[in-house]
Parts: sequence; C-alpha cells; structure tokens
Amino acid sequence: MLINIKENLLTENVVKKMTVIKDLQHCIALLGWDQETKMPIGSWEARADQICTLEEISHKILTDDDSKRLVDKIKNNKCDKSSLQNRLLCLYVKDYEKASKLNNDFIIRYSKAKSQSLESWRNAKKHNNFNFFENDFTTLIELTIEKAELLGCTRNKYDALLDEFEEGMTYNKLLLIFENIELKTKKLTSQIAKSHNKIKSINPKLEFYEKVQFKFAKKIAKKLAFDFQKGRLDKSIHPFTTSFSQKDVRITTRIDKNNIFSCLYGTIHEVGHGLYEQGIDLSLYRTFASDATSLGIHESQSLIWENIICRTQEFWEWVMPELKNHFHNELKGYDEKDMYEMVNKVENSFIRTESDELTYNLHILIRTDIENKLINRKIKAKDLPDIWNELYKKHLGLIPKNDNIGCLQDIHWAAGMFGYFPTYTLGKLYSSTIWEEMNIQIPHLKSIIKEGEFFIIRKWLKENIHTFGRLKSPEEIIFDICGKSLNTEDFFSYLEKKLKHVYEI
Amino acid sequence: MLINIKENLLTENVVKKMTVIKDLQHCIALLGWDQETKMPIGSWEARADQICTLEEISHKILTDDDSKRLVDKIKNNKCDKSSLQNRLLCLYVKDYEKASKLNNDFIIRYSKAKSQSLESWRNAKKHNNFNFFENDFTTLIELTIEKAELLGCTRNKYDALLDEFEEGMTYNKLLLIFENIELKTKKLTSQIAKSHNKIKSINPKLEFYEKVQFKFAKKIAKKLAFDFQKGRLDKSIHPFTTSFSQKDVRITTRIDKNNIFSCLYGTIHEVGHGLYEQGIDLSLYRTFASDATSLGIHESQSLIWENIICRTQEFWEWVMPELKNHFHNELKGYDEKDMYEMVNKVENSFIRTESDELTYNLHILIRTDIENKLINRKIKAKDLPDIWNELYKKHLGLIPKNDNIGCLQDIHWAAGMFGYFPTYTLGKLYSSTIWEEMNIQIPHLKSIIKEGEFFIIRKWLKENIHTFGRLKSPEEIIFDICGKSLNTEDFFSYLEKKLKHVYEI
Repeated sequence: MLINIKENLLTENVVKKMTVIKDLQHCIALLGWDQETKMPIGSWEARADQICTLEEISHKILTDDDSKRLVDKIKNNKCDKSSLQNRLLCLYVKDYEKASKLNNDFIIRYSKAKSQSLESWRNAKKHNNFNFFENDFTTLIELTIEKAELLGCTRNKYDALLDEFEEGMTYNKLLLIFENIELKTKKLTSQIAKSHNKIKSINPKLEFYEKVQFKFAKKIAKKLAFDFQKGRLDKSIHPFTTSFSQKDVRITTRIDKNNIFSCLYGTIHEVGHGLYEQGIDLSLYRTFASDATSLGIHESQSLIWENIICRTQEFWEWVMPELKNHFHNELKGYDEKDMYEMVNKVENSFIRTESDELTYNLHILIRTDIENKLINRKIKAKDLPDIWNELYKKHLGLIPKNDNIGCLQDIHWAAGMFGYFPTYTLGKLYSSTIWEEMNIQIPHLKSIIKEGEFFIIRKWLKENIHTFGRLKSPEEIIFDICGKSLNTEDFFSYLEKKLKHVYEI
Repeated sequence: MLINIKENLLTENVVKKMTVIKDLQHCIALLGWDQETKMPIGSWEARADQICTLEEISHKILTDDDSKRLVDKIKNNKCDKSSLQNRLLCLYVKDYEKASKLNNDFIIRYSKAKSQSLESWRNAKKHNNFNFFENDFTTLIELTIEKAELLGCTRNKYDALLDEFEEGMTYNKLLLIFENIELKTKKLTSQIAKSHNKIKSINPKLEFYEKVQFKFAKKIAKKLAFDFQKGRLDKSIHPFTTSFSQKDVRITTRIDKNNIFSCLYGTIHEVGHGLYEQGIDLSLYRTFASDATSLGIHESQSLIWENIICRTQEFWEWVMPELKNHFHNELKGYDEKDMYEMVNKVENSFIRTESDELTYNLHILIRTDIENKLINRKIKAKDLPDIWNELYKKHLGLIPKNDNIGCLQDIHWAAGMFGYFPTYTLGKLYSSTIWEEMNIQIPHLKSIIKEGEFFIIRKWLKENIHTFGRLKSPEEIIFDICGKSLNTEDFFSYLEKKLKHVYEI
C-alpha cells in the first residue's frame, strides 16, 4: 500500500472530495467507451448532452467553495513533496488551480464544440472531404486557443496545451528533440536504402478469418497478463484504452481481415496501456493519483510491448507456433525470421498508425508543427489539407490522394486533443530508455521473451512505473529507474541495432 | 410536439434543471446496463461506488435551494393541470417534494445497501442457499422500512412503496383485486382441468442453436418496429429494458438452447417496453415527463405484445413459416396450431417468469402478501424461505425443492424494489382493457396480425399511450382510450375466451 488515506483528517477529507470527482470522470469515460463500442448511432446528441452535464458538474465540484477551503488548508500546511501523502494533496491543489482557470460557461461551450466537431469529422470521413469538417473545426480551434489563454502563463500558447498531457513540456523543448530525430532518421533511412535484404510480404489478398484473429488477440492479451477479471477487450473503429478505475479497464482493437498484424499489434499496444491502468496501486483508488503520470509515460508502456518486446526475434520464436495453430494454411511458407523482418520493415507511408517505428516520428513532427501553427494563428483551419500535403511531401515524399488518408486520418484534433500527438514520440523515447535498463535489471530477458514468460516483465514494469500513478512525475519515474532523463540517444541506439540486424547492414 | 418549453421563462428554467437531473439518471441507467451486460466481475464494488455518487449528486441537485425557489414559484402560479405545460411543472413539484423527504445520508446508505444486497443475492444464487443473502437482505428491509417512513403519509407503510411504482396504489385496493383474481383463476383452472385436448410439447432435449435464436429475436424486434437506430438488443442473465433517453433504448434477452419460446417471448416482452420508451414524444426529451406514466402501464405495453398479440393464432400463422426457415428440422411435425396451443398452455409452475398468463397472477399475489408482511414487520427476512414455500403450496400446490427455484428466483427484492411486483398484475389488467378497445378502434386487427403489419398497432399504441410519457396519469390514459378504469373483468373475459378456444371447452 503506497498511501494510507486515513493517516490524517485533511487527507481523508481531500480524498472524499476526490472520490466524487473521480467517479464522475469514470462515468464520463464509460459514456465515451459506450459511444465508441455499443451506442446506437441515433443517440449521439443525447450522449453529447450527458457528457457535457457530467463535465459541468465535475468542474463545479472541483472548483466550489468547499474545494477552495481544502486547498487553502493544504497550502497552509506547506506540504513538502517528500511524503507520498503530501504529493497526493499537492495533486489536488494542482488540479484545483488548473480547473479554476476555466469557468463553467467555457466548460459547457467547449464540451459541446468537441462533440459537434467529432460528429462533423465522422461525417467528413464518410464523404472523404475535409470541407464537411472545416466549420466546426474552426470553432473548436478558437475554443482551444481560448482554453490555452485561460490556462495562461506560458510564452507560447501551445505550451499550455502540451502541459495538459505532458507536464512541463514546451514547444521549444520539442523543437530540439525533433531536430535531432529528423537528422538521425534521415541518416538511418539512407543506410537502410542501401540494404540488399529483400523482406518478404504477405499477399494482401489473403484473408485471415476475423473471429480467429479476435480469439487470438484475446489469448495474447491474457498471456501478456492483462486481467480479464478487471477488464475487457472489444472491437471499435479506432482502438483505444479507457478505464473506470483500476478495477475496470477496457481496451479495444480493430480487425483487418487482410492484415494479420493490424489486430495483433493493435491489441498488444492497448494491452500495454491497459496493464498500466490495471497496475496502479489500489491504495490510490478513486484519488487524483490513480491516473498515469503523463501521456508520454503511458505511451511508453504501450510501445515497449508493441514495438520493442513484441517485435524482437525472440517474441516471434515464441508466438509463431501459436499463430500457425490458428492460421496454418495462411502462414504456410513463412517462418519466425520472415515475420520478424516484416514487422520491422521501414517504409514511408501515409497513415501514422500503420507506419514503422522509424518514420513514425516524422508523422508526429508534421502534426506538432501544424498544431503549433494553428494555435498561434499562423495558419487557419481551412489551410489544413494543403499544409498537410505539403509537409507529407517534404518529410515523407508522399502526397495523400485524398483527405481520408491525409488530414482526416486521426480523431485527435476533432476531439479537441491538441498537444497530444507529441506524447507518442516522447513515449518512444521513454520506452527505449526503459528497455535499455530493463535489459540490465532483468536477467535473461531475451530468453524470458522466447519462453513467453511475460508476467516477469509485467511485474517489473508494475513495480517501477505503474504502481505510482501520478505520485511520481515522468522525470522521476525515468530517473528512479536508471538515473537518466528524456533523450533521443537510447531510441536510436536501440533502433539502429535492430534495423541493422533486420536489414543485414 | 406536445409541449413548447420556450413558452415561458419559468418552464424554461425548470426544464434546464430537469435536464441535469435526467442526464444523471440516464448515466446511472447506463452504469446499470453496463453492469448487467458488459462489466468485468472484478469491478462490482467500483460500480457500486459510481452509482452511489451519481445518485447522491442527483438527489442534491433536485433538493437544493435553487430547486426550492423554482418549486415555490410554480406553487405561487397555482398551476392548474389543464395545460400540458403546467403538468410538466407539477411533475417537478411532485418529484422535488418526494426527494426532499429523503435526506442525503439516507440516499448514500440506501444505495450502498442495495449494491451489497444484490451482490449477496448473486452469491446466494451461486450457492443455491438463502443463508448467504439473509444478513444483507435484513439490512435492506430495514432501510426500505425507513424509506417508507420517510416518505410517510400513508395508513399502511407498504402503500408508500407501492406509490413509487404506481401512483395512488394501496394495499387495500390490491387486496380487492387479488381476491377477485384468485376466485376467477381457480374457477377457470378447474374448467381447464376437465379439458380432453392434449396439448403437444417440444422434446426438452432438442437444441435450438443459440446464435440463430438471437438472430431471429432481432428480426422479430425489427418487425415489431423496435428502432435499432435508437436502441440495441443484447444478452443478459435477466432480460430487462433500460433507456438513456428516447434516443437510446436498450433491451436484453436470454437464450435457453432447449427452449425456443424463452428467447422469443422474452425479446417480445422487452420490445414492448422498448417501444414505449422510444415512443415518448421528443418534446419531452430530458424532462421529468419523459418516463412512462407508471410501471403498470409500462408492463401493459410489454404484455400486450408478449401475451396477447403474439400469442394469438393469427400471430402464429404469420410467424411459423419464418420460424421454420430458421429451425426447419427442429420444428418438423409441428404446425401453427400446435405452437399456438403450446404457448397458451396453463400449468402451475415454480418460476414466475416461466408461468402462464393465468397462474402468473398467483405468483404475484404471493409476493404482494410477503412484501406487505415484511414491510409491516409481521415476518422477518429469515422467515422468507418457509413462508414462500408455504404460500406456493397453498396457491399452486407446489413446494420448491431449493431456494433458487423458490425465494431467490427474482432480482427485485435484492435490488430494493418492494412494491414493484403488483405492477405486473396491473399490467395484465390494463393490457386486456387496451386490447379490447384496440379491437374496436383498429379495423381488421386480426388480419393485420396475420399479415405481420405490426407497425399499425405500434402507431396506435404510440398515439394513445407512449407519446404522453408522464403527462397523463395511468387512470387518464385508460379513461381517455375507452372511458373505463382499472378492472379485472376485461382480463378474464379476454383470457377465458382464448383458453376455452385452446382447451376446446
């Protein structure tokens, strides 16, 4: 047990208040999960109303007079951050102060605009035409700028949004990181281009029975120690993870009947997120510490499984016989090595979620650039398709044929999530640093993977990362594991080694 | 459009308040639906916490100072009930006054006790042993008595609970109804006993493929005009209907692979409820009038489909070819008439939900008697199994072999629903009166059924019943349709006619 909330009356009172707000947030999460997986389409307006009401109530309770009194008391106590108890109280102050910057009227307008823009985005996707999205997107951007201004206190407005997902992150810090990444990516790409190794591919017309794919995905999720007593796996158009406390964590996957890797790696990715949510210490239940410390760290937990552990040759040695049990005929003629090479193939592509480990960051670089410009009013919503295509041409050498494989591909902006994309790259960086240290701390890691003993890895991740929730900052998590900080070296040293192996260069 | 909420400022303000409370109630309903259909078992405590929090918030908002001011204004306006607008305002006063009788502390204790008792009931069912349920059930009964006392103002405490589900209903009124029913049931039963017609049965070992049953159920639901754009059908252990506004109505069914009728009639029953919920006028969206007027009327809407329309010979003439398309081999040797007779067979049984139209009311009579005694402390929780068995012996001539087919069979009491059971019988009575009038008002009703043109019936029900929500009382609904009031004559005249036909007596 990390903390004992009954230790003193103030903590007890603060936690009491937290539980109400967390319950509301978990209900909002359920409304969202249901919307994406089960809700009949005729109900989207009603659902938007419900989410808006709960968000409004939650905001009111967090910023009411009673809350202010608690915050004042905590501040009077001059809580230092040495005890975990105090850290929990500090989280309350922090969230209170942030929420207090946004007024109730804004919360309602913002919530409605997000629902409306999500709906238009869906409509635009249906018509494969950005124009259907433009108006509502313009409104949402204006509100997002208003939000950034209300949150305030940053040199660049965009920083206020970045901070929402990764505390302390700024556009200037990202610029340095991406500059570095761009250079190293180009260098590695040109090395790969010289390789003579011809990586196989699976006939894209081959069909992998959807039910069997789903069954297999469930099996892998279990093997990776996802707890189905406290979670579920469903299908949705866009895979995601959500939780209604550590005791109910829901992940989803999508199935492409022609692509065996889509469901497999999609599931593994969400399992990584799900393990984090399930692994947060139970003493933090219904407190503000019961979330991930940041989205960057959250993403590191999905990526360490999806990209690192489960794209090793050892993983494929373990999984291939099992996979062949399910798709004997379809996989005839392929062995572990073929699969290992295929899942590590580097190739420029239009779609972020389908891109490889190396070029993926270029997709993020583009989005980060665009976000920063939109929020600082350097470009307008209507400019998006052109700028998008221009940047794809510049960085990936590709011009999307239409908006669906271009600027409409991601749900994030439509849902009001500006500042979210960079956390994917941060997750990659964090995960490589964690992986390097894991190799030192867990003896025989490779043979553990080869034997499919993933619970050992899960245990290590839980003890070093998951359990703390928000009680440690991202920097502390990484520092406490290996004494390092966020860097691009570990990522490229890990990836270069693997890609040189794959491409025999 | 039944009402225009923008007609005056007071209505607008009251409706604004209503929308928040309705949204919360709809969220609570979603939490419940998810719990019964999707939630992982490890999350039941967390879910109980969430429901409790939302119930507490909803109660607080309905009874706060702002609410009191609105209620005072409505009362000052001396609203007469002639306009529907005013009726809506009166509903606010009514719900406010009822909620104000229950304090916040009680709401929390009661919500927790209900969750706890539901969990114990599930556990008791698992062990087929009432003892696992006894303690939590005792607590819940005590709280229910406390609730009845807080609601107050009735001669018999039980009346306060009856009124929750059927406004104005009292134990004394029910006594008269059941006395009447008991006599007429016995008379009809003894007549049937003399019949020489041997009704066929389906081999109970025969298996009807579950997926096909579910597919067929969905088809029937569509045919009965259930709108899948604004609703869904799922599986659950106990079939139920819930809604998160008229735009999202969820029904469930259960499938017994050896009993083709269980899923079919279970689905039809819930479709009847679902059509009511979907049929409430959209101008009442998110207001206190957007619910059914009473549970008795609600039940009449499920029963008119389940027991009356879909147990006619004409229905079987329509459905049989369709059903045989799905279960060709299984139903070889049975024709429409066989099926019609089977689904109208009268036979004493242990399980309420499996009983026939005639003896069903005896199950309700027993439960009503027990409820009244429990709430008036004439018996204790621990006495339940003995009294249950004694009454089943007396009224149905059967002694349950164990608690699962005895006093543990229903979820209602475990969920704190005392006073609910009688509405099943009221539903039967209402439905027969409505059916009689429908036969007068809809020309060629029988051939409409035979042709499967159920949308015509649905339209009539919507226009005469569903659309009004709570804007008309149960008495008004029935009176406006046919100038009658609640009675047992219509039920027995309808049923006697059918059973004499079935039993050829």
